[in-house]
Amino acid sequence: MDIATVIGLFLGFALVIGSILIGGGGLGPFINVPSLMITVGGSFAALLINFPLAKVLGVASVVKKCFTVALPSTAEVIERFMNLSTIVRRDGLLALENEFDSIDDEFLKRGLEMVVGGSSREELTSILEIEVAYIEQRHQNGKKIIDATAAAAPAFGMIGTLIGLVQMLRTLDDPSQIGVGMATALLTTLYGAVIANLVCIPLAGKLEARSQEEVLIRELMIAGMGALVEGHPPRIVQERLVAFLAPAHRPEPETTAAAA
Amino acid sequence: MDIATVIGLFLGFALVIGSILIGGGGLGPFINVPSLMITVGGSFAALLINFPLAKVLGVASVVKKCFTVALPSTAEVIERFMNLSTIVRRDGLLALENEFDSIDDEFLKRGLEMVVGGSSREELTSILEIEVAYIEQRHQNGKKIIDATAAAAPAFGMIGTLIGLVQMLRTLDDPSQIGVGMATALLTTLYGAVIANLVCIPLAGKLEARSQEEVLIRELMIAGMGALVEGHPPRIVQERLVAFLAPAHRPEPETTAAAA
Amino acid sequence: MDIATVIGLFLGFALVIGSILIGGGGLGPFINVPSLMITVGGSFAALLINFPLAKVLGVASVVKKCFTVALPSTAEVIERFMNLSTIVRRDGLLALENEFDSIDDEFLKRGLEMVVGGSSREELTSILEIEVAYIEQRHQNGKKIIDATAAAAPAFGMIGTLIGLVQMLRTLDDPSQIGVGMATALLTTLYGAVIANLVCIPLAGKLEARSQEEVLIRELMIAGMGALVEGHPPRIVQERLVAFLAPAHRPEPETTAAAA
Amino acid sequence: MDIATVIGLFLGFALVIGSILIGGGGLGPFINVPSLMITVGGSFAALLINFPLAKVLGVASVVKKCFTVALPSTAEVIERFMNLSTIVRRDGLLALENEFDSIDDEFLKRGLEMVVGGSSREELTSILEIEVAYIEQRHQNGKKIIDATAAAAPAFGMIGTLIGLVQMLRTLDDPSQIGVGMATALLTTLYGAVIANLVCIPLAGKLEARSQEEVLIRELMIAGMGALVEGHPPRIVQERLVAFLAPAHRPEPETTAAAA
Amino acid sequence: MDIATVIGLFLGFALVIGSILIGGGGLGPFINVPSLMITVGGSFAALLINFPLAKVLGVASVVKKCFTVALPSTAEVIERFMNLSTIVRRDGLLALENEFDSIDDEFLKRGLEMVVGGSSREELTSILEIEVAYIEQRHQNGKKIIDATAAAAPAFGMIGTLIGLVQMLRTLDDPSQIGVGMATALLTTLYGAVIANLVCIPLAGKLEARSQEEVLIRELMIAGMGALVEGHPPRIVQERLVAFLAPAHRPEPETTAAAA
Repeated sequence: MDIATVIGLFLGFALVIGSILIGGGGLGPFINVPSLMITVGGSFAALLINFPLAKVLGVASVVKKCFTVALPSTAEVIERFMNLSTIVRRDGLLALENEFDSIDDEFLKRGLEMVVGGSSREELTSILEIEVAYIEQRHQNGKKIIDATAAAAPAFGMIGTLIGLVQMLRTLDDPSQIGVGMATALLTTLYGAVIANLVCIPLAGKLEARSQEEVLIRELMIAGMGALVEGHPPRIVQERLVAFLAPAHRPEPETTAAAA
Repeated sequence: MDIATVIGLFLGFALVIGSILIGGGGLGPFINVPSLMITVGGSFAALLINFPLAKVLGVASVVKKCFTVALPSTAEVIERFMNLSTIVRRDGLLALENEFDSIDDEFLKRGLEMVVGGSSREELTSILEIEVAYIEQRHQNGKKIIDATAAAAPAFGMIGTLIGLVQMLRTLDDPSQIGVGMATALLTTLYGAVIANLVCIPLAGKLEARSQEEVLIRELMIAGMGALVEGHPPRIVQERLVAFLAPAHRPEPETTAAAA
Repeated sequence: MDIATVIGLFLGFALVIGSILIGGGGLGPFINVPSLMITVGGSFAALLINFPLAKVLGVASVVKKCFTVALPSTAEVIERFMNLSTIVRRDGLLALENEFDSIDDEFLKRGLEMVVGGSSREELTSILEIEVAYIEQRHQNGKKIIDATAAAAPAFGMIGTLIGLVQMLRTLDDPSQIGVGMATALLTTLYGAVIANLVCIPLAGKLEARSQEEVLIRELMIAGMGALVEGHPPRIVQERLVAFLAPAHRPEPETTAAAA
Repeated sequence: MDIATVIGLFLGFALVIGSILIGGGGLGPFINVPSLMITVGGSFAALLINFPLAKVLGVASVVKKCFTVALPSTAEVIERFMNLSTIVRRDGLLALENEFDSIDDEFLKRGLEMVVGGSSREELTSILEIEVAYIEQRHQNGKKIIDATAAAAPAFGMIGTLIGLVQMLRTLDDPSQIGVGMATALLTTLYGAVIANLVCIPLAGKLEARSQEEVLIRELMIAGMGALVEGHPPRIVQERLVAFLAPAHRPEPETTAAAA
Repeated sequence: MDIATVIGLFLGFALVIGSILIGGGGLGPFINVPSLMITVGGSFAALLINFPLAKVLGVASVVKKCFTVALPSTAEVIERFMNLSTIVRRDGLLALENEFDSIDDEFLKRGLEMVVGGSSREELTSILEIEVAYIEQRHQNGKKIIDATAAAAPAFGMIGTLIGLVQMLRTLDDPSQIGVGMATALLTTLYGAVIANLVCIPLAGKLEARSQEEVLIRELMIAGMGALVEGHPPRIVQERLVAFLAPAHRPEPETTAAAA
């Protein structure tokens, strides 16, 4: 679980709700189903027009990446490939097949099947790089939909507020209702602002960071599989993979020597 | 029919109208012909100044693409070219002429005529690629006009509201009219916001997605015709065309074997 | 005359004025010389500071292009060059001199003088291409000034409104004047919005379209003159020039055969 | 003196002040030292944080370029180099030393010293081009600071208005002060808008135009010095330099022949 | 200490507070803990969602660069390398080890260890350039977080104001509270504007300037170490390093001769 995303969302909503409760009058006046309907529903309608249906429905699985940590860390990937290279040097490439059961990652499994199947390093790299490009593109599509929502929600919030204002202004003769009418009209603007600034804009940012992270892990795996095909010893495999990391993330020489 | 566009527009307007009806007072106060005139008419006037007349009049045919699905799917295109390649290998290139009646797509028909007429693969590709570039440009022009409308509508909405406010402010001495005057003044802003956010911005997005989709289908057709000219067997034709697709959209090996 | 620009401006102002008249109270309250002074004059002052004096004064001649159609159509250019090539093949390059009187276009005349004077195709092309680049740059400069006006007018409109609001707010004790004062204050914002959205933004768009159109015509002329120098027959001249046009604008084979 | 900048600033402020005087109540209510303090002082504080101290202090000398015309015109530069080339051909390169006293321009003097000192054309060009790049960069830095001010001034104007509004709203019980309080609160917004739209944005534009102009003049000088080193006759020097100018700015053949 | 950053922040806050005190009513009404909570806390929550946890926590160390001057000046770097080259020519590369104790800068120390260790100039350069790229990337990441805060703070300020307005509008029946409620509601907008315009936007600018400055110093060091490896005399080392500086920052010939 990406604890920062969860804490951030929890903290943000806690602050918004807390700030409402401190102001007095309770949460009641801030909950209004029709206001939610026009803001959320209107944004969703705009998304349906804007994007192919399949992409709108698929955005949830992309957003899930902002909350879950399905990927191994770079250290784990490097260690795994050092182990795999030990196996390959001891028992040959075919021995990798025994490892398949312990691998959950689809991308890694497919790659290793190609390694066992005798693909050359060039073949392996070119096919897997295309796959990485498609993974990146799917993330970009997801980000585009979230960005569009971040723009649509405040717009439909404003549309809702305009509708509320027009209705309130036509009944000015009942002064007791002016304040309540205007307060309700402003709710959609508030909803739109919260959806955009507390949910969509930050999630789009996290999605981009996650995408870069996944691409790095995938590149690391491709480099590792290339090294397996060429039959390098664990030490060389480690060296090659470590070169992908920022200096601050590189393991200390002693530690990795022990791990090796 | 692109069901998502239609559902999105229907849902969006239903939500806007529903939210008006829930607020009470009926739709009446929200319908105002002069307000519509200044917002829609003013935007149209700005478009006339902004773009060559022919392009403004031609935008409807481009927008239609957001609602209709005139293009075959990638799977249909691949299957068709596998069939055509079977015919070519069995009866020669000239036998393609018998297929012309069953082809609705103008682009495909023109290309196949060139194939039958003996064009080389290079000639065919270079001429059809130019045509694809012009198709893309026409879509871009359409998108530019919709983008300009998305910017003009809220601007003329604001102009209408300013006119209404000035008129309302000059008759402050009749307090009973203040609310109604201001409500009417706000209508143009509401119209402008709905036109931009529920219609133009999402349609421009869909148009771009559709344009990319059409370009992909056209590229697929060009590759297919190139393969016909070179007389490849159906299996090779399929392989070449499948390479254009994202992995997730590639047919399962078994299925396509059956289709072939 | 570019009828779309004229109709658009006429329609736009008719809608704005019509919408004022329908609202009641006549045009009177919307005409205010000091308000016009601060919005238009302030924008002009900002332009004077922003751009070299010569460019501000020269913008009128660039804007004129949005209203007039001084350029021949592509069909006319192609036909003219087919005729010229007939003359060249019949009577030699020098015979082109007799045609000079019937040519109004300065660019074309200068180029033909170089053709008659014996310039090579390379010389001709390189000199005229530089001239086209300068034409394009002048249009870009014009567009930059119009864009700057589109940004300055609403800003000075807001400055005018702020001045009016401050004055109105200091005389709140005379309630009968509040509405009128505020209405007048809003006029500058209205003027700024109309100048930007009905005049400047659309004109900048049309200017860009016109610039692209002129560049296309000039490129067509350069290609035509190159073909004259090389002494090609009319049919080849036509073929070369037609290649510049989008397929939809290409003449039907039969028609042009007749025209030739 | 760049008369357009001066006229523009004078005209702009005259219009703003005139529009205040026409509105009645005199200039008094529009002059408020604390309001000026927060808008101008706040923007200056933001600049101090944003940019290295030396650059903030150096911006004045860059802005001065918007008001003064220290550079010779292109015609003067061309004529000067034609004269210098006459001297070089008659008396040799060393004779240029006698001209140094009559040259004010530092850039030109440094270059000619290198010419006299025997630098090759390549050396000269590479060293002077680096200097031109640094001149351009200094202008860009100046423009960045003015752009930052154009963004900061309205922001601090808004901060000042918010402070004023909060104070006015807490003393609503004295209705006679509401208008005056709000009027004063709006002053900072007005100051910010005037600073940004009448001063900073146009000056940034003029600075860019001036920068391009200076770079052109410097390039002209570099080309001229290169021609001196190679000992070309005045006519060739002129030809080379004229090639830098837009056709409309090129001298008439006859005139320059006379000048030569 | 970067005195400009400190003075700017001090001046900015002094002006804001001074402007509050001049307006009367004291600072009291402008201090409101819940308002601060929603603006600052909400922005922080959005950052937590937007960025990986480690980067949010690490931003402080990046921001510190805007306040401290940890880097030697270019003149100091040049002088140091001239001294080091004297040592190398006199006592050989190994003699550099005696200098390590007097070097605080980690980057320089690591590089000199490589020099002593016998790295070639190419090795040294390629490894240290990668490190510089990572330094730059860390600064960019820091700037991205500050930019995101500059966008989030006004947004959460608006959310807080909307909440306050809704609460105030629902209690219109107690007129004495309207002003106070609205004043409090506006505080979050004020906080957001101050955080963005007085803190975040200028700090992001300074961070970028500092980043460019550090990269220049690091490049200077890399060039200096390269010159050490190649055993150049102090004069050549100086010449090479001076070439990195803008002409205005280059030391006077005499002075540096003395320093050498």
